[in-house]
Amino acid sequence: MPAAASPPAVPAPSDAPLHERTPVRVALLGCGVVGSQVANLLLEQSPDLGARVGAPLQLVGVAVRDLTRPRDGVPAELLTDDAEALVDTADIVVELMGGIEPARGLILRALARGASVVTANKQLLAEQGPVLFEAADAARADLSFEAAVAGAIPIVRPVRESLAGDQVNRVLGIVNGTTNYVLDEMTTQGMDLDDAVKRAQELGYAEADPTADVDGFDAAAKAAILASLAFHTRVSIHQVAREGIRGITSDDVDWARRTGYVLKLLAIAERTGEGVAARVHPALVPTDHPLAAVRGAFNAVFVEAEGAGPLMFYGQGAGGRPTASAVLGDVVSAARDRLIGGKGPQESAYASLPVLPSDAAVTRYQVRLEVADRTGVLAQVAGVLAEHGVSIDTVRQSEALTAPFEAEPASEPAPGAVPDEGEPVARLVITTHAAREASLAATVAALEGLEPVRQITSVLRVEGV
Amino acid sequence: MPAAASPPAVPAPSDAPLHERTPVRVALLGCGVVGSQVANLLLEQSPDLGARVGAPLQLVGVAVRDLTRPRDGVPAELLTDDAEALVDTADIVVELMGGIEPARGLILRALARGASVVTANKQLLAEQGPVLFEAADAARADLSFEAAVAGAIPIVRPVRESLAGDQVNRVLGIVNGTTNYVLDEMTTQGMDLDDAVKRAQELGYAEADPTADVDGFDAAAKAAILASLAFHTRVSIHQVAREGIRGITSDDVDWARRTGYVLKLLAIAERTGEGVAARVHPALVPTDHPLAAVRGAFNAVFVEAEGAGPLMFYGQGAGGRPTASAVLGDVVSAARDRLIGGKGPQESAYASLPVLPSDAAVTRYQVRLEVADRTGVLAQVAGVLAEHGVSIDTVRQSEALTAPFEAEPASEPAPGAVPDEGEPVARLVITTHAAREASLAATVAALEGLEPVRQITSVLRVEGV
Repeated sequence: MPAAASPPAVPAPSDAPLHERTPVRVALLGCGVVGSQVANLLLEQSPDLGARVGAPLQLVGVAVRDLTRPRDGVPAELLTDDAEALVDTADIVVELMGGIEPARGLILRALARGASVVTANKQLLAEQGPVLFEAADAARADLSFEAAVAGAIPIVRPVRESLAGDQVNRVLGIVNGTTNYVLDEMTTQGMDLDDAVKRAQELGYAEADPTADVDGFDAAAKAAILASLAFHTRVSIHQVAREGIRGITSDDVDWARRTGYVLKLLAIAERTGEGVAARVHPALVPTDHPLAAVRGAFNAVFVEAEGAGPLMFYGQGAGGRPTASAVLGDVVSAARDRLIGGKGPQESAYASLPVLPSDAAVTRYQVRLEVADRTGVLAQVAGVLAEHGVSIDTVRQSEALTAPFEAEPASEPAPGAVPDEGEPVARLVITTHAAREASLAATVAALEGLEPVRQITSVLRVEGV
Repeated sequence: MPAAASPPAVPAPSDAPLHERTPVRVALLGCGVVGSQVANLLLEQSPDLGARVGAPLQLVGVAVRDLTRPRDGVPAELLTDDAEALVDTADIVVELMGGIEPARGLILRALARGASVVTANKQLLAEQGPVLFEAADAARADLSFEAAVAGAIPIVRPVRESLAGDQVNRVLGIVNGTTNYVLDEMTTQGMDLDDAVKRAQELGYAEADPTADVDGFDAAAKAAILASLAFHTRVSIHQVAREGIRGITSDDVDWARRTGYVLKLLAIAERTGEGVAARVHPALVPTDHPLAAVRGAFNAVFVEAEGAGPLMFYGQGAGGRPTASAVLGDVVSAARDRLIGGKGPQESAYASLPVLPSDAAVTRYQVRLEVADRTGVLAQVAGVLAEHGVSIDTVRQSEALTAPFEAEPASEPAPGAVPDEGEPVARLVITTHAAREASLAATVAALEGLEPVRQITSVLRVEGV
């Protein structure tokens, strides 16, 4: 590998007509769905974009692995398979390859030369963010990543900059469009999970292997990035507790509806007195919460800030055009910063709050269980919760769904009553007040050992109340 | 007035401990609901804010008109009634006085010295934005105004920066919390307008004189600012067509609900092939549109961009704490820019698109009218619409609210039929396809002259379909 050339001179603001000014040179790494859109927009709209920057934006090349594959609308002479040489000619490097290597090495190479970097690589940021940010700070170069979280939705910039004078306490995000589509289809069309995933694959929302979406890996990467931004603390994907939607049944979705909730896969970042935590799991969201109205493959990020109060950012979380819009916004800002000789905000990690283990989380729960339908069982169940310090908000019994009743029943079982294998079964839906995850886990284990309990059908967290 | 001193030296980034670095000096003009919150947050959180900036933020003074009035939590020694002298000592001037003068003169004075300015003054920006932006550009100083539109909601920065690589086609905003509260109370509680306004006054949402809110002046100022930002074109409040909610009746709200809509006061900025336009008026929004779910005094701005697609930004549009959050975000950004020696985005007015007259607007309409209940009247009414080139989407008759039926009735009136004064009256609710405002106005005038028409009950625009 040749030694990197010294960075090209930064073009200065000028009074010359736009097209005569020194262009800002943009290199693109990757030319997939998003990359080809970015390339086309840079080629088509370049005079317009130039006016916003104050100098022309010039696409100097597009690095691809396979030079023989035609790239829609991208002239063949711009394509190259020598990504390193391309990086060495650019003022701004746009990394849209995804994955760890060679993306990581190319970004570090660009930053070392003083080039600005725009990336949509959530995996790389969530795993190796600190390495990249330190390189950007050392080079006093911009490292921007609006497209890495919630696609087209401006969320990185508002949290980094607009809320810079506020304190974020909590972030609840629907940041994976595929799983939101799947849960929405299950809710509105009564589909089961497998059929809804198939439907999402047919529509191009889900990959042939839907693991990254369905098991929450994609959302966990975004949760790590959101938590880092919101709390000025480095949080890596390995610190994010993760549970996907694979275990969600039509019955879960149906009971959610019947008890006044909608099931959503949430990326949650929260600050407590002890530190910060990030987690991803399915959660029951009250139907009147703004997140409950986020339908189909849309994304939304709900932010609770000390001063601003509740905020929500809503839009398309994926797709070539929407993601390209976020990338271009970062390119224009990076280009402006270069012309001005300034720099966008650096990584803000000054708070360095402790990142808490996942079992420290405190949430409400909804536990559905099947019990022998006989007098006094509710008292036994309530007793187990009380023993573990888990306080009950409401209990609903069977399909009756009458008004919530007292947890204390009128009569107790006769002493020495023997369980009857054939006896009828009642269904209980218990919603708790906020409880520690560890207490709830112990409660569930104890309930499983309780004689009249036939089955713990589901345990779901309740968020946004 | 003494000649303005030369601007104070810009503090440089430093490796010294935070508290030893040269502070960024912040002056506050005005100490009302928002101002006192900003002062308190600067005083209380200053180490935390300093870490985000890279240097301490120092509140050097608060200019007020009445020195004798105590200001909650603000030490008396910081208060001054000499705003000009205070401006001359500051790196960043935060203008929260409102109104045109003396705010305008003080902002220009600050900019002339090279100080950065943060303002929440929507009236001044909407009336005299270009003067202020030119002064900021000449001084290469930041002029920020996140708090001027939709309070705590980050909207100015996302539109200015995140969407800098995209094209905005349309903005629909609920930007006045008072009127949204009033319409929401009318919708959900069945109140009439006067009672809902009284309720808003009791809760502190509405002023004793609610004109600025109810008649749409506040929303019009914000529409002008949003249109300027979104379309890179200067739009002043005098170019915004404005209609408030004073004419809205319980009946309008009720019919909106019955026909699948919610009534909202919208600030609309849109781009057409001919130019751009901004208007404020009550509008019917479909119940499944994200704006329809914006309840109470909340604000939301819905943006349709070419690449990003639909986006929505939601949060609190008023109140001391939320607005102070937006102001502080701007202060932190301006302070960072000063340390870096950079500059935030300038006014972007390169597009300079023509601003269209209000009667060029093209929207759908819902017209409610009372007609003589006899055969053939519908055909006459439909004929009037057709003559004016206004095409009908649906017609609903009377209270029946059956499925929409064909606009072409089966039979025509008997020739020479004479109107009967005592005859029964039917109510028609006609929803049109998109039509020019001028065509619709001519249609309504013609309908008023039509013999069987007893009354045009209401004419409302339909948006967000």
